[in-house]
Amino acid sequence: MDISGFFPIWDKLSTNERETLINAAQPRFVKKGTLVYGGSADCVGLFAIRSGQLRAYILSDEGREVTIYRLFERDICLFSASCMMSSIQFEISIEAEKDTELWLIPTAIYKTLMESSSVIANYTNEIMASRFSEVMWLIEQIMWKSFDKRLAAFLLEEGTLEESKALKITHEKIANHMGTAREVVTRMLNYFQSEDMIALTRGGIEIKNRKKLENLIK
Amino acid sequence: MDISGFFPIWDKLSTNERETLINAAQPRFVKKGTLVYGGSADCVGLFAIRSGQLRAYILSDEGREVTIYRLFERDICLFSASCMMSSIQFEISIEAEKDTELWLIPTAIYKTLMESSSVIANYTNEIMASRFSEVMWLIEQIMWKSFDKRLAAFLLEEGTLEESKALKITHEKIANHMGTAREVVTRMLNYFQSEDMIALTRGGIEIKNRKKLENLIK
Repeated sequence: MDISGFFPIWDKLSTNERETLINAAQPRFVKKGTLVYGGSADCVGLFAIRSGQLRAYILSDEGREVTIYRLFERDICLFSASCMMSSIQFEISIEAEKDTELWLIPTAIYKTLMESSSVIANYTNEIMASRFSEVMWLIEQIMWKSFDKRLAAFLLEEGTLEESKALKITHEKIANHMGTAREVVTRMLNYFQSEDMIALTRGGIEIKNRKKLENLIK
Repeated sequence: MDISGFFPIWDKLSTNERETLINAAQPRFVKKGTLVYGGSADCVGLFAIRSGQLRAYILSDEGREVTIYRLFERDICLFSASCMMSSIQFEISIEAEKDTELWLIPTAIYKTLMESSSVIANYTNEIMASRFSEVMWLIEQIMWKSFDKRLAAFLLEEGTLEESKALKITHEKIANHMGTAREVVTRMLNYFQSEDMIALTRGGIEIKNRKKLENLIK
Protein backbone atom coordinates (compact mmCIF):
# COMPACT_ATOMS: atom_id res chain seq x y z
CA MET A 1 0.00 0.00 0.00
CA ASP A 2 1.11 3.48 -0.98
CA ILE A 3 1.57 6.08 1.78
CA SER A 4 -1.44 8.00 0.43
CA GLY A 5 -3.68 5.09 1.42
CA PHE A 6 -3.00 5.80 5.09
CA PHE A 7 -4.33 9.34 4.90
CA PRO A 8 -8.08 9.50 4.24
CA ILE A 9 -7.52 13.26 4.12
CA TRP A 10 -5.09 12.92 1.16
CA ASP A 11 -7.43 14.88 -1.16
CA LYS A 12 -7.34 17.84 1.19
CA LEU A 13 -3.55 18.07 1.22
CA SER A 14 -1.58 20.45 -0.95
CA THR A 15 0.73 19.10 -3.66
CA ASN A 16 3.64 20.15 -1.51
CA GLU A 17 2.38 18.30 1.56
CA ARG A 18 1.76 15.16 -0.49
CA GLU A 19 5.24 15.25 -1.93
CA THR A 20 6.75 15.77 1.50
CA LEU A 21 4.95 12.69 2.82
CA ILE A 22 5.82 10.57 -0.23
CA ASN A 23 9.48 11.52 -0.04
CA ALA A 24 9.65 11.13 3.74
CA ALA A 25 8.16 7.64 3.90
CA GLN A 26 10.85 4.97 4.20
CA PRO A 27 9.98 1.30 3.72
CA ARG A 28 11.00 -0.89 6.65
CA PHE A 29 10.76 -4.58 7.37
CA VAL A 30 10.79 -5.86 10.95
CA LYS A 31 10.98 -9.48 11.95
CA LYS A 32 8.47 -10.96 14.37
CA GLY A 33 9.65 -10.40 17.95
CA THR A 34 11.55 -7.18 17.24
CA LEU A 35 11.14 -4.35 19.73
CA VAL A 36 10.40 -1.47 17.37
CA TYR A 37 9.94 1.18 20.03
CA GLY A 38 11.22 1.15 23.59
CA GLY A 39 10.15 4.46 25.09
CA SER A 40 10.47 8.18 24.38
CA ALA A 41 14.23 7.97 23.81
CA ASP A 42 13.50 6.11 20.58
CA CYS A 43 10.95 8.44 19.01
CA VAL A 44 11.95 7.52 15.47
CA GLY A 45 8.72 8.50 13.79
CA LEU A 46 5.25 7.36 12.79
CA PHE A 47 4.76 3.83 11.55
CA ALA A 48 2.22 3.21 8.82
CA ILE A 49 1.61 -0.54 8.82
CA ARG A 50 1.49 -2.14 5.38
CA SER A 51 1.21 -5.73 6.62
CA GLY A 52 1.80 -7.61 9.84
CA GLN A 53 0.94 -6.80 13.43
CA LEU A 54 2.34 -4.63 16.22
CA ARG A 55 1.59 -4.78 19.94
CA ALA A 56 1.76 -1.75 22.24
CA TYR A 57 2.26 -2.53 25.92
CA ILE A 58 3.34 -1.00 29.18
CA LEU A 59 5.92 -2.40 31.58
CA SER A 60 5.93 -2.26 35.38
CA ASP A 61 9.10 -1.70 37.42
CA GLU A 62 9.08 -5.42 38.13
CA GLY A 63 8.93 -6.27 34.43
CA ARG A 64 5.24 -7.16 34.27
CA GLU A 65 3.48 -6.31 31.03
CA VAL A 66 -0.01 -5.33 29.94
CA THR A 67 -1.03 -5.15 26.29
CA ILE A 68 -2.64 -1.77 25.65
CA TYR A 69 -3.67 -2.23 22.05
CA ARG A 70 -2.63 -3.83 18.79
CA LEU A 71 -2.05 -2.31 15.39
CA PHE A 72 -2.84 -3.99 12.11
CA GLU A 73 -2.56 -3.36 8.39
CA ARG A 74 -3.69 0.19 7.53
CA ASP A 75 -3.17 1.47 11.12
CA ILE A 76 -0.87 4.34 11.96
CA CYS A 77 1.27 4.13 15.08
CA LEU A 78 1.51 7.60 16.61
CA PHE A 79 3.26 6.96 19.90
CA SER A 80 6.47 5.84 18.23
CA ALA A 81 6.74 9.58 17.58
CA SER A 82 5.56 10.54 21.08
CA CYS A 83 8.25 13.23 21.51
CA MET A 84 6.24 15.28 18.96
CA MET A 85 3.90 16.23 21.80
CA SER A 86 5.18 17.42 25.13
CA SER A 87 1.98 16.37 26.93
CA ILE A 88 2.51 12.67 26.24
CA GLN A 89 3.82 11.70 29.66
CA PHE A 90 3.87 7.94 29.59
CA GLU A 91 6.12 5.25 28.27
CA ILE A 92 4.95 2.45 26.07
CA SER A 93 6.83 -0.26 24.24
CA ILE A 94 5.95 -1.60 20.83
CA GLU A 95 6.94 -4.95 19.39
CA ALA A 96 6.27 -6.76 16.14
CA GLU A 97 3.98 -9.71 16.84
CA LYS A 98 4.29 -10.86 13.25
CA ASP A 99 6.74 -10.11 10.47
CA THR A 100 5.76 -6.54 9.63
CA GLU A 101 6.19 -4.22 6.69
CA LEU A 102 5.74 -0.55 7.40
CA TRP A 103 6.41 2.95 6.22
CA LEU A 104 8.46 5.03 8.63
CA ILE A 105 7.75 8.77 8.58
CA PRO A 106 10.48 10.54 10.57
CA THR A 107 9.25 12.55 13.57
CA ALA A 108 10.73 15.91 12.57
CA ILE A 109 9.15 15.87 9.12
CA TYR A 110 5.73 14.86 10.41
CA LYS A 111 5.88 17.42 13.21
CA THR A 112 6.59 20.21 10.74
CA LEU A 113 3.67 19.10 8.57
CA MET A 114 1.34 18.88 11.56
CA GLU A 115 2.32 22.34 12.78
CA SER A 116 1.59 23.99 9.48
CA SER A 117 -1.42 22.00 8.29
CA SER A 118 -4.69 22.03 10.25
CA VAL A 119 -5.88 19.09 8.13
CA ILE A 120 -2.94 16.92 9.23
CA ALA A 121 -3.20 18.16 12.82
CA ASN A 122 -6.89 17.23 12.98
CA TYR A 123 -6.25 13.87 11.41
CA THR A 124 -3.55 13.23 14.02
CA ASN A 125 -6.12 14.15 16.64
CA GLU A 126 -8.46 11.49 15.30
CA ILE A 127 -5.71 8.86 15.45
CA MET A 128 -5.04 9.73 19.07
CA ALA A 129 -8.76 9.66 19.87
CA SER A 130 -8.93 6.11 18.42
CA ARG A 131 -6.13 4.91 20.69
CA PHE A 132 -7.72 6.73 23.60
CA SER A 133 -10.96 4.83 22.94
CA GLU A 134 -9.12 1.50 22.97
CA VAL A 135 -7.48 2.35 26.27
CA MET A 136 -10.82 3.34 27.80
CA TRP A 137 -12.24 0.01 26.63
CA LEU A 138 -9.34 -1.73 28.36
CA ILE A 139 -10.04 0.08 31.65
CA GLU A 140 -13.66 -1.04 31.52
CA GLN A 141 -12.51 -4.61 30.90
CA ILE A 142 -10.06 -4.56 33.77
CA MET A 143 -12.44 -2.94 36.22
CA TRP A 144 -15.67 -4.68 35.43
CA LYS A 145 -15.04 -7.96 33.65
CA SER A 146 -14.06 -10.98 35.66
CA PHE A 147 -10.87 -12.75 34.64
CA ASP A 148 -12.62 -15.76 33.05
CA LYS A 149 -14.44 -13.45 30.64
CA ARG A 150 -11.28 -11.52 29.80
CA LEU A 151 -9.32 -14.70 29.17
CA ALA A 152 -12.09 -16.21 27.02
CA ALA A 153 -12.22 -12.98 24.98
CA PHE A 154 -8.44 -13.06 24.58
CA LEU A 155 -8.39 -16.68 23.33
CA LEU A 156 -11.19 -15.97 20.85
CA GLU A 157 -9.39 -12.89 19.56
CA GLU A 158 -6.15 -14.83 19.19
CA GLY A 159 -7.99 -17.53 17.27
CA THR A 160 -9.39 -14.93 14.90
CA LEU A 161 -6.02 -13.19 14.44
CA GLU A 162 -4.19 -16.45 13.82
CA GLU A 163 -7.05 -17.86 11.73
CA SER A 164 -6.57 -21.11 13.55
CA LYS A 165 -7.98 -23.12 16.41
CA ALA A 166 -4.49 -24.16 17.43
CA LEU A 167 -2.86 -21.25 19.23
CA LYS A 168 0.89 -21.40 19.68
CA ILE A 169 1.20 -19.32 22.82
CA THR A 170 2.62 -19.95 26.27
CA HIS A 171 0.82 -19.30 29.56
CA GLU A 172 3.61 -16.84 30.37
CA LYS A 173 2.88 -14.84 27.24
CA ILE A 174 -0.84 -14.71 27.93
CA ALA A 175 -0.05 -13.49 31.45
CA ASN A 176 2.06 -10.71 29.92
CA HIS A 177 -0.80 -9.66 27.69
CA MET A 178 -3.25 -9.51 30.54
CA GLY A 179 -1.02 -8.09 33.23
CA THR A 180 -1.40 -11.01 35.59
CA ALA A 181 0.69 -13.88 36.94
CA ARG A 182 1.31 -17.09 34.99
CA GLU A 183 -0.26 -19.21 37.75
CA VAL A 184 -3.54 -17.30 37.44
CA VAL A 185 -3.62 -18.02 33.71
CA THR A 186 -2.75 -21.69 34.13
CA ARG A 187 -5.46 -22.17 36.75
CA MET A 188 -8.14 -20.67 34.51
CA LEU A 189 -6.94 -22.57 31.43
CA ASN A 190 -7.17 -25.80 33.41
CA TYR A 191 -10.74 -24.88 34.29
CA PHE A 192 -11.54 -24.13 30.62
CA GLN A 193 -10.08 -27.52 29.73
CA SER A 194 -12.16 -29.29 32.35
CA GLU A 195 -15.20 -27.64 30.74
CA ASP A 196 -14.11 -28.91 27.29
CA MET A 197 -13.81 -25.40 25.91
CA ILE A 198 -10.11 -25.85 25.12
CA ALA A 199 -7.44 -28.54 25.14
CA LEU A 200 -3.98 -27.81 26.48
CA THR A 201 -1.41 -29.15 24.05
CA ARG A 202 2.36 -29.27 23.95
CA GLY A 203 3.38 -25.63 23.43
CA GLY A 204 -0.10 -24.35 22.87
CA ILE A 205 -3.84 -24.27 23.30
CA GLU A 206 -6.48 -25.71 21.05
CA ILE A 207 -9.90 -24.12 20.94
CA LYS A 208 -12.41 -26.99 21.13
CA ASN A 209 -15.70 -25.21 21.64
CA ARG A 210 -15.84 -21.64 20.38
CA LYS A 211 -19.54 -21.33 21.14
CA LYS A 212 -19.02 -22.13 24.81
CA LEU A 213 -16.23 -19.56 25.10
CA GLU A 214 -18.46 -16.99 23.44
CA ASN A 215 -21.29 -17.76 25.84
CA LEU A 216 -18.95 -17.06 28.73
CA ILE A 217 -18.43 -13.50 27.53
CA LYS A 218 -22.09 -12.64 27.11
CA MET B 1 -9.69 34.55 34.50
CA ASP B 2 -10.17 35.78 30.97
CA ILE B 3 -10.62 33.17 28.19
CA SER B 4 -7.20 34.15 26.77
CA GLY B 5 -5.55 32.78 29.91
CA PHE B 6 -6.62 29.25 28.94
CA PHE B 7 -4.79 29.37 25.63
CA PRO B 8 -1.00 29.51 26.00
CA ILE B 9 -0.99 29.80 22.22
CA TRP B 10 -3.04 33.06 22.35
CA ASP B 11 -0.16 35.08 20.85
CA LYS B 12 -0.15 32.84 17.80
CA LEU B 13 -3.85 33.35 17.04
CA SER B 14 -5.15 35.85 14.52
CA THR B 15 -7.23 38.83 15.67
CA ASN B 16 -10.22 37.12 14.14
CA GLU B 17 -9.67 33.88 16.00
CA ARG B 18 -9.21 35.71 19.28
CA GLU B 19 -12.43 37.63 18.79
CA THR B 20 -14.30 34.46 17.90
CA LEU B 21 -13.14 32.81 21.13
CA ILE B 22 -13.89 35.88 23.26
CA ASN B 23 -17.38 36.24 21.81
CA ALA B 24 -18.10 32.52 22.01
CA ALA B 25 -17.15 32.05 25.66
CA GLN B 26 -20.20 32.06 27.92
CA PRO B 27 -19.79 32.31 31.69
CA ARG B 28 -21.49 29.49 33.59
CA PHE B 29 -21.88 28.65 37.25
CA VAL B 30 -22.59 25.07 38.33
CA LYS B 31 -23.40 23.99 41.84
CA LYS B 32 -21.49 21.20 43.53
CA GLY B 33 -23.04 17.86 42.65
CA THR B 34 -24.36 18.90 39.23
CA LEU B 35 -23.91 16.45 36.37
CA VAL B 36 -22.44 18.78 33.74
CA TYR B 37 -21.99 16.15 31.04
CA GLY B 38 -23.73 12.82 30.74
CA GLY B 39 -22.43 11.29 27.53
CA SER B 40 -22.12 12.16 23.87
CA ALA B 41 -25.76 13.23 23.58
CA ASP B 42 -24.87 16.26 25.67
CA CYS B 43 -21.84 17.51 23.77
CA VAL B 44 -22.47 21.14 24.72
CA GLY B 45 -18.92 22.37 24.26
CA LEU B 46 -15.54 22.84 25.90
CA PHE B 47 -15.38 23.88 29.53
CA ALA B 48 -12.61 26.23 30.61
CA ILE B 49 -12.55 26.04 34.40
CA ARG B 50 -12.19 29.37 36.18
CA SER B 51 -12.59 27.99 39.70
CA GLY B 52 -13.85 24.84 41.34
CA GLN B 53 -13.37 21.20 40.47
CA LEU B 54 -14.82 18.68 38.01
CA ARG B 55 -14.62 14.89 38.08
CA ALA B 56 -14.67 12.73 34.95
CA TYR B 57 -15.78 9.13 35.47
CA ILE B 58 -17.06 6.09 33.64
CA LEU B 59 -20.11 4.04 34.57
CA SER B 60 -20.62 0.30 34.23
CA ASP B 61 -23.93 -1.24 33.16
CA GLU B 62 -24.52 -2.06 36.82
CA GLY B 63 -24.00 1.55 37.86
CA ARG B 64 -20.48 1.17 39.24
CA GLU B 65 -18.20 4.16 38.80
CA VAL B 66 -14.48 4.76 38.33
CA THR B 67 -12.96 8.22 38.49
CA ILE B 68 -10.82 8.73 35.39
CA TYR B 69 -9.38 12.15 36.18
CA ARG B 70 -10.20 15.47 37.76
CA LEU B 71 -10.09 18.96 36.33
CA PHE B 72 -9.11 22.05 38.26
CA GLU B 73 -8.78 25.79 37.80
CA ARG B 74 -7.08 26.58 34.46
CA ASP B 75 -7.89 23.15 32.96
CA ILE B 76 -9.84 22.70 29.77
CA CYS B 77 -12.40 19.92 29.52
CA LEU B 78 -12.35 18.53 26.00
CA PHE B 79 -14.61 15.51 26.24
CA SER B 80 -17.68 17.59 27.01
CA ALA B 81 -17.34 18.37 23.28
CA SER B 82 -16.52 14.77 22.32
CA CYS B 83 -18.83 14.79 19.30
CA MET B 84 -16.23 17.09 17.65
CA MET B 85 -14.18 13.99 16.90
CA SER B 86 -15.71 10.90 15.39
CA SER B 87 -12.98 8.64 16.76
CA ILE B 88 -13.91 9.28 20.39
CA GLN B 89 -15.79 6.06 21.01
CA PHE B 90 -16.38 6.01 24.72
CA GLU B 91 -18.80 7.57 27.14
CA ILE B 92 -17.74 9.50 30.18
CA SER B 93 -19.73 11.51 32.68
CA ILE B 94 -18.57 14.73 34.29
CA GLU B 95 -19.84 16.17 37.55
CA ALA B 96 -18.97 19.26 39.58
CA GLU B 97 -17.23 18.16 42.79
CA LYS B 98 -17.21 21.73 44.05
CA ASP B 99 -19.14 24.86 43.10
CA THR B 100 -17.56 25.63 39.75
CA GLU B 101 -17.27 28.70 37.54
CA LEU B 102 -16.41 28.02 33.93
CA TRP B 103 -16.42 29.37 30.42
CA LEU B 104 -18.45 27.34 27.98
CA ILE B 105 -17.23 27.40 24.38
CA PRO B 106 -19.93 25.87 22.15
CA THR B 107 -18.84 22.78 20.19
CA ALA B 108 -19.70 24.07 16.71
CA ILE B 109 -17.68 27.26 17.13
CA TYR B 110 -14.63 25.47 18.53
CA LYS B 111 -14.81 22.79 15.86
CA THR B 112 -14.77 25.41 13.10
CA LEU B 113 -11.76 27.11 14.70
CA MET B 114 -9.93 23.82 15.08
CA GLU B 115 -10.56 22.84 11.48
CA SER B 116 -9.15 26.07 10.10
CA SER B 117 -6.32 26.76 12.54
CA SER B 118 -3.39 24.36 12.86
CA VAL B 119 -2.34 26.20 16.03
CA ILE B 120 -5.67 25.47 17.73
CA ALA B 121 -5.74 21.91 16.37
CA ASN B 122 -2.28 21.21 17.76
CA TYR B 123 -3.16 22.76 21.10
CA THR B 124 -6.25 20.53 21.23
CA ASN B 125 -3.96 17.61 20.54
CA GLU B 126 -1.84 18.53 23.56
CA ILE B 127 -4.93 18.71 25.79
CA MET B 128 -5.97 15.24 24.66
CA ALA B 129 -2.43 13.91 25.20
CA SER B 130 -2.55 15.22 28.79
CA ARG B 131 -5.77 13.34 29.51
CA PHE B 132 -4.35 10.27 27.79
CA SER B 133 -1.36 10.43 30.12
CA GLU B 134 -3.64 10.56 33.17
CA VAL B 135 -5.58 7.55 31.95
CA MET B 136 -2.36 5.60 31.35
CA TRP B 137 -1.29 6.45 34.88
CA LEU B 138 -4.61 5.10 36.12
CA ILE B 139 -4.11 1.80 34.28
CA GLU B 140 -0.70 1.39 35.88
CA GLN B 141 -2.25 2.06 39.29
CA ILE B 142 -5.05 -0.45 38.77
CA MET B 143 -2.80 -3.15 37.36
CA TRP B 144 0.21 -2.89 39.56
CA LYS B 145 -0.62 -1.14 42.81
CA SER B 146 -2.29 -3.10 45.54
CA PHE B 147 -5.52 -1.68 46.92
CA ASP B 148 -4.00 -0.46 50.22
CA LYS B 149 -1.55 1.72 48.27
CA ARG B 150 -4.26 3.07 45.98
CA LEU B 151 -6.53 3.89 48.91
CA ALA B 152 -3.71 5.57 50.87
CA ALA B 153 -2.85 7.67 47.80
CA PHE B 154 -6.51 8.60 47.38
CA LEU B 155 -6.88 9.75 51.02
CA LEU B 156 -3.69 11.80 50.82
CA GLU B 157 -4.83 13.44 47.58
CA GLU B 158 -8.24 14.23 49.09
CA GLY B 159 -6.52 15.77 52.12
CA THR B 160 -4.46 17.99 49.83
CA LEU B 161 -7.44 19.00 47.67
CA GLU B 162 -9.62 19.77 50.69
CA GLU B 163 -6.71 21.37 52.57
CA SER B 164 -7.90 19.53 55.63
CA LYS B 165 -7.19 16.43 57.67
CA ALA B 166 -10.91 15.93 58.20
CA LEU B 167 -12.36 14.46 55.01
CA LYS B 168 -16.11 14.57 54.64
CA ILE B 169 -16.58 11.58 52.39
CA THR B 170 -18.54 8.36 52.65
CA HIS B 171 -17.16 4.88 52.08
CA GLU B 172 -19.68 4.55 49.24
CA LYS B 173 -18.23 7.61 47.52
CA ILE B 174 -14.67 6.36 47.84
CA ALA B 175 -15.78 3.03 46.36
CA ASN B 176 -17.23 4.93 43.39
CA HIS B 177 -13.97 6.77 42.84
CA MET B 178 -11.96 3.58 42.88
CA GLY B 179 -14.32 1.29 41.05
CA THR B 180 -14.69 -1.19 43.88
CA ALA B 181 -17.35 -2.29 46.36
CA ARG B 182 -18.13 -0.35 49.54
CA GLU B 183 -17.28 -3.36 51.72
CA VAL B 184 -13.75 -3.51 50.29
CA VAL B 185 -13.23 0.15 51.19
CA THR B 186 -14.66 -0.24 54.70
CA ARG B 187 -12.44 -3.23 55.39
CA MET B 188 -9.29 -1.40 54.37
CA LEU B 189 -10.28 1.77 56.26
CA ASN B 190 -10.80 -0.31 59.39
CA TYR B 191 -7.30 -1.68 58.92
CA PHE B 192 -5.87 1.85 58.47
CA GLN B 193 -7.66 2.85 61.66
CA SER B 194 -6.25 -0.09 63.57
CA GLU B 195 -2.80 1.09 62.43
CA ASP B 196 -3.56 4.63 63.71
CA MET B 197 -3.16 6.13 60.25
CA ILE B 198 -6.74 7.44 60.24
CA ALA B 199 -9.73 7.75 62.53
CA LEU B 200 -13.20 6.94 61.29
CA THR B 201 -15.56 9.71 62.39
CA ARG B 202 -19.25 10.37 62.02
CA GLY B 203 -19.69 11.12 58.32
CA GLY B 204 -16.02 11.19 57.50
CA ILE B 205 -12.40 10.22 57.91
CA GLU B 206 -9.69 12.01 59.82
CA ILE B 207 -6.11 11.66 58.70
CA LYS B 208 -4.08 11.02 61.87
CA ASN B 209 -0.69 10.08 60.52
CA ARG B 210 0.13 11.41 57.06
CA LYS B 211 3.70 10.13 57.24
CA LYS B 212 2.56 6.57 57.79
CA LEU B 213 0.15 6.74 54.85
CA GLU B 214 2.93 8.14 52.69
CA ASN B 215 5.25 5.32 53.70
CA LEU B 216 2.65 2.84 52.54
CA ILE B 217 2.80 4.20 49.02
CA LYS B 218 6.58 4.10 48.68
